[in-house]
Amino acid sequence: MEEVYAFGANPLDRASERRGDAAWVAALLDHPDSRIALLSELKPRVRPGSPAPVIDWQPVAPWRDHIAAGATCVLLGLVDGRARFALDATAVPLGADGAELGDMRALAGIMEAGAAAILGEARAIIDWHARHRFCAACGTSTTVHSAGWSRRCPSCKAQHFPRTDPVVIMLPVRGERCLLGRNARRAGARFSCLAGFVEPGETLEAAVRREVLEESGLRVGRVTYVASQPWPFPSSLMCGFIAEAISDDLKIDHAELATARWFSRAEVLAMAARSAAGEDAPDTLAPPIAIGHHLARRWASGEF
Amino acid sequence: MEEVYAFGANPLDRASERRGDAAWVAALLDHPDSRIALLSELKPRVRPGSPAPVIDWQPVAPWRDHIAAGATCVLLGLVDGRARFALDATAVPLGADGAELGDMRALAGIMEAGAAAILGEARAIIDWHARHRFCAACGTSTTVHSAGWSRRCPSCKAQHFPRTDPVVIMLPVRGERCLLGRNARRAGARFSCLAGFVEPGETLEAAVRREVLEESGLRVGRVTYVASQPWPFPSSLMCGFIAEAISDDLKIDHAELATARWFSRAEVLAMAARSAAGEDAPDTLAPPIAIGHHLARRWASGEF
Repeated sequence: MEEVYAFGANPLDRASERRGDAAWVAALLDHPDSRIALLSELKPRVRPGSPAPVIDWQPVAPWRDHIAAGATCVLLGLVDGRARFALDATAVPLGADGAELGDMRALAGIMEAGAAAILGEARAIIDWHARHRFCAACGTSTTVHSAGWSRRCPSCKAQHFPRTDPVVIMLPVRGERCLLGRNARRAGARFSCLAGFVEPGETLEAAVRREVLEESGLRVGRVTYVASQPWPFPSSLMCGFIAEAISDDLKIDHAELATARWFSRAEVLAMAARSAAGEDAPDTLAPPIAIGHHLARRWASGEF
Repeated sequence: MEEVYAFGANPLDRASERRGDAAWVAALLDHPDSRIALLSELKPRVRPGSPAPVIDWQPVAPWRDHIAAGATCVLLGLVDGRARFALDATAVPLGADGAELGDMRALAGIMEAGAAAILGEARAIIDWHARHRFCAACGTSTTVHSAGWSRRCPSCKAQHFPRTDPVVIMLPVRGERCLLGRNARRAGARFSCLAGFVEPGETLEAAVRREVLEESGLRVGRVTYVASQPWPFPSSLMCGFIAEAISDDLKIDHAELATARWFSRAEVLAMAARSAAGEDAPDTLAPPIAIGHHLARRWASGEF
């Protein structure tokens, strides 16, 4: 089976074909075995646990009034037939019951992988609702359908679905060296792969070649898919590739990359080890929650 | 280099890093070497050509009033430094100059590959503008920026980018047989791969396994990426996979698939040949413009 990275190990049965059955969804909300995860301003409520925090799963009943008042509520999926929902509880202050708000990236590095993936799904879809309350076609306020998986316009009847933005992320390689860069737009960014959004009318492979050329000046020949990762900041789907450069001369776009240079396999392995040990310095590799870390590490290990 | 399918061979330099330079874009619109492709109700204007129709590229000047009046105009990219734009000319009746409106799918099967890809890009982004005139965050009418590659909200300042929806399309295989189905929702659908939209919180591989299980009842183990294809109906990015089934019993979801059954490699090759020869019958394979055709053909040829 393929390697799976942070936010990718979602254990839920999405039951997508049943979401449109409003009576079924209502029965799940009433069921005593159903549980709900809460997010406030997109931060998940978690409880201390060992070795890491756990999702603060709540019974649904105490939250029924908030749901009825219009707080975004989404059916994330089922575990052994028992429903798991997510609720936007931004309007509700934390109680004194020991729950706390966690940072999603920090949690993804320490929580059980399935729990982190569930919270990533919850974050992506709650954020989509928050930013898509109106019909993009006509401007009318839309209503939630399909247990939180669509919005419909009462005026023009348009149906809107959660958005997922494909991003290519790639390691340019040339013989025994690979190119890593530091993002110019993120303070404290470490060395990682290049990346960019796929545009209408592009294949994934064409997007890889365009982004590498734009950011580094390198021409890319063969492009090899490695793995994908959902990245809920806010709604990316990272598609990871190895990109074989067929030219050498770097022409760095400093609007995109603060710096970029070639690394040997040994250098990458050393940086990956420091990063995996928790070191956070500008001259080390992106953290292990990021697929870019693994593309570089796997290439450096001789996998490609 | 990888195989490239219909809409995938886009030859344009998108010059994406310069789109935000309004003076540069205005100069391109004024330049006598610039050309503009016209779409009416998303159908491209083409001219008869041999062996196939060609894009009816127009000088920009006669269309300046339409652009000034607010018709959607997008910088598709550059060819040898010369700009290629697309214009939504739905409001303008066809003249008597020999141009005609073409069907995008039919054209993609016969036109030069690069031209079809350019028209696919034009269709996807013009359609995106038509369906996203208002801010999804606050309902205000938005304005076009970056040569047609973003819209901005004058009220809440939200920035909106063209949407590209990742779709997984996969051929389930089990030993020497593969599963093909006929879509229940499209009249006249032929046998093809299974497919479905990737959801927030999913890897591509998880989406493959979920869709195959939902539609066919088969459990999937190893998933192998093959190729991708932009599919501008309206804004899909098809991500093609081979999906190794680890169970045998079919449980077809007839809301999705009118029928589905196992095929031998020889059967698939025979169907692919009939389809490539232009035969359009329910018991043949999806046409060669579709990546599903090639996933099945390549597996049947022993490539995987």
